[in-house]
Amino acid sequence: MPILTSGYAARDESGHMSPFVFEHRDVGPHDVHIKVTYCGMCHSDLHQIKNEWHNSSYPMVPGHEVVGIVSAVGSEVTKVKVGDSAGVGCMVDSCLKCDRCLESEEQYCIPGMMIGTYNAKNFDGTPTYGGYSLDIVVKDHFVLRMPSNLPLDAAAPLLCAGITTWSPMRFYGMDKPGTKVGVVGLGGLGHMAVKFGVAFGCEVTVISSSASKEKEAIEVLGAHKFLCSKDPEAMKAASESLDFIVDTASVKKDMAPYFGLLKIDGTLVVVGIAPEPLEIHAFSLIPRRKKIAGSLIGGIKETQEMLDFCGDKNIACTIEKIPMDYVNTAFERMTKSDVKYRFVIDCVTIPTADKMPEDARKH
Amino acid sequence: MPILTSGYAARDESGHMSPFVFEHRDVGPHDVHIKVTYCGMCHSDLHQIKNEWHNSSYPMVPGHEVVGIVSAVGSEVTKVKVGDSAGVGCMVDSCLKCDRCLESEEQYCIPGMMIGTYNAKNFDGTPTYGGYSLDIVVKDHFVLRMPSNLPLDAAAPLLCAGITTWSPMRFYGMDKPGTKVGVVGLGGLGHMAVKFGVAFGCEVTVISSSASKEKEAIEVLGAHKFLCSKDPEAMKAASESLDFIVDTASVKKDMAPYFGLLKIDGTLVVVGIAPEPLEIHAFSLIPRRKKIAGSLIGGIKETQEMLDFCGDKNIACTIEKIPMDYVNTAFERMTKSDVKYRFVIDCVTIPTADKMPEDARKH
Repeated sequence: MPILTSGYAARDESGHMSPFVFEHRDVGPHDVHIKVTYCGMCHSDLHQIKNEWHNSSYPMVPGHEVVGIVSAVGSEVTKVKVGDSAGVGCMVDSCLKCDRCLESEEQYCIPGMMIGTYNAKNFDGTPTYGGYSLDIVVKDHFVLRMPSNLPLDAAAPLLCAGITTWSPMRFYGMDKPGTKVGVVGLGGLGHMAVKFGVAFGCEVTVISSSASKEKEAIEVLGAHKFLCSKDPEAMKAASESLDFIVDTASVKKDMAPYFGLLKIDGTLVVVGIAPEPLEIHAFSLIPRRKKIAGSLIGGIKETQEMLDFCGDKNIACTIEKIPMDYVNTAFERMTKSDVKYRFVIDCVTIPTADKMPEDARKH
Repeated sequence: MPILTSGYAARDESGHMSPFVFEHRDVGPHDVHIKVTYCGMCHSDLHQIKNEWHNSSYPMVPGHEVVGIVSAVGSEVTKVKVGDSAGVGCMVDSCLKCDRCLESEEQYCIPGMMIGTYNAKNFDGTPTYGGYSLDIVVKDHFVLRMPSNLPLDAAAPLLCAGITTWSPMRFYGMDKPGTKVGVVGLGGLGHMAVKFGVAFGCEVTVISSSASKEKEAIEVLGAHKFLCSKDPEAMKAASESLDFIVDTASVKKDMAPYFGLLKIDGTLVVVGIAPEPLEIHAFSLIPRRKKIAGSLIGGIKETQEMLDFCGDKNIACTIEKIPMDYVNTAFERMTKSDVKYRFVIDCVTIPTADKMPEDARKH
C-alpha cells in the first residue's frame, strides 16, 4: 500500500512553498523507508523551485540533504535496519550496470539514467519527491549510513554541500598535506571546502568579496589565509600562490583575477552552476598551462567514505535550524546570502497529512 | 662587431610589412649565428604586427619558425657546428635557473623572464628581431637541431605549430594508441595535431565548420573521422565519443557543442589565443566532470624530441612557400584562412642590407 505523507511543495515558477500531501511507493524488497527528521536547504533547491535551469516539474517537493530514522526495510535490505539513522543525497536511482555505476560513480551514469531525489521521474514514471517532508522511500543502494557521533541536523548538508566539495578535492588531488587550496565563496559549499581542506592538512585561503568575513574564516572555520577579491594589491601579492581553487560562488564574475592566483598547472574547479556562462580568456589558461574543471556531487561509495571521515574527525556543517513554515523566508534570505552557512529544516514541524489544509491535496 | 642584416618589419599597427635594415649582436661565447633560409608565418605574427594583444613594439621583425644554416658559433658552443642546419622557435632566452627552466620548461619561466624571439627585449635591453630576415644570433641553449632527412622549409613550422600541438598532446596524455582525439580547426596548428595524432596511433576526428574539408582531412592528412560542426545530427550522434579535443580555432564560438563531444573526464585543450574571452557554461563542465586547459608552445628539450620524432616518422608541415615580398598578401590571405596549411617565407629572396632602399634604415 502506498505511504501517505506530507511536506511542502512549490506549485509553479514563483517558487512559493506551501503544504502538500502526497504518496510514496510501498516498501519493496530493496527499499528503505526513512522517517525524515531534518533536511538541508541547498542553493540548487532555489534554482529549481524557480525553474532557473529550465527543467522544473510541479508540484515539486525539494530537498536532497535528507536525514532521518529507518522505519521499515524490504526483505532484501542488509545495509541498514529499523531504528538506524540514515541519509539520502542527490540521487535515488541509476542503471547500476554501466561502467560508471560499477565504479560507484552513479552520478555519472548514462545521461538521463541517474534519477534525482526530486524534480525527476523514477523508472516507473512516478515523480520523485525530496526531503522537505515527513517520509522518503529509497532503494537501499542509495541510502547512506550516518555517523553516530554527529548531530543529525548538522550532518544533513554533508549529503550535498559536503560531497560536492569532497569529491573534486579528492579526485583532483587536493587531499595532500601542504597543498595550497583557495576557496571562493563562503556559503554552504565553501565553508565545507574550508573544513575539508583544513582536515586534509592543506594550507587553505578563503577568497571573498567581503573583507568582513576574514575573522570568521580564520578564527571559526580554521582557514589559514584570507584574501579580499576587491583588494587588487592583496590579489597581486598572492599571484601564482595556489595549487587549486574551489569556486563555490556560482555567479557571473571576472574570472581572470582568480586564475592569476593559480600556480603553473593549477586547476580551478567549479562546483556551482551559474545560470549565465563563465567568461574565460584564453590568456588565463594558456601562458601558465592552467585548467578549469567541473565536478558533480559524488558517488555513493565516496559519499559513505566522506561521512565516515566526518564521523572520525568530528566534522559537520555549521547550520541554522528552522521550522518548516519558515521555508519561504529562508529562501528569501538565501538569495541575499544571509545564512551561516546552511538552513536545515526541522521536519518534525511538518504537520502530518491529516492535519494539512484541504488544498494541500491538490496536485 | 654587430652583425648588419636585413629583413621585413611592421612599423606600426597597420601591420604593413616593409624592408628593414638592422643589427644583431656579435657572436658571444655561447651564441650561434644562423643564416636564415626559411621562416614560417604564424597566426600570432598577425596578431602582433597589428597589436591585437596590446603589447607590440615597433619596428617589429616577426617570425619564430626560423630555420637556416649555422655560419658561426661561439667558443663554448658544442650543440651545433658551422654548416649544420638549425632552428629557432618562440624563445631566445630565459632565466635558466628557476624550477621550470631546470625542467626544460623554459616557456613557463618566471613571468617576464622568458624572452620571445621577436617583439621582446633581451636582458641587455636590446630588442629581439625574428626570422623574417637573413640572419639571427641566438644563445645556444635555444637552438634546435633540425632532422637531416626533412626538407628545411617544410620543417620550419614544426618550431611553433608543431611544438604547440605536440606539447599538450604529450602532457595531457593524448599520445596513447587508441585514444580518441578531436581536432578543431584545420590550419597550421590543426593539421599538425592531426599528423601527430595519427602517428601516435590515436583515432583522430577532424571537426570543422566547412564540410568541404572532409576529403582532404581523411585522404591527405590521414584523419579517421570527420565531423561538420554545422551538422547538428552528426554532432549529436558523436556525443561523448572523444577523450580529448585540441581546439586550434582561436575564434569566439559557442563552446557547448564541442564539450558535448567529450566523454566523462574529457579535456578540451585550447592552444590559440582569441582576442575575446571564451564563453563556457558550467553545464558544459559539471555534469560530466569535464575540463578545459591551456598550453603554451613547449620547452627546448621536448621541442628537440618532437623534431627527432618527426625525423624518424618523416613528418613535416604542409606548406606554401612564398618570396619575402609576398608577405603582405600572405597576411591578407591568412585572415581569410586561405592557406594550406602554413606560409613559409623563402628568406634567400630578401635583399641584403646593401641592396635595401634608404628608408629601410629608419628605426
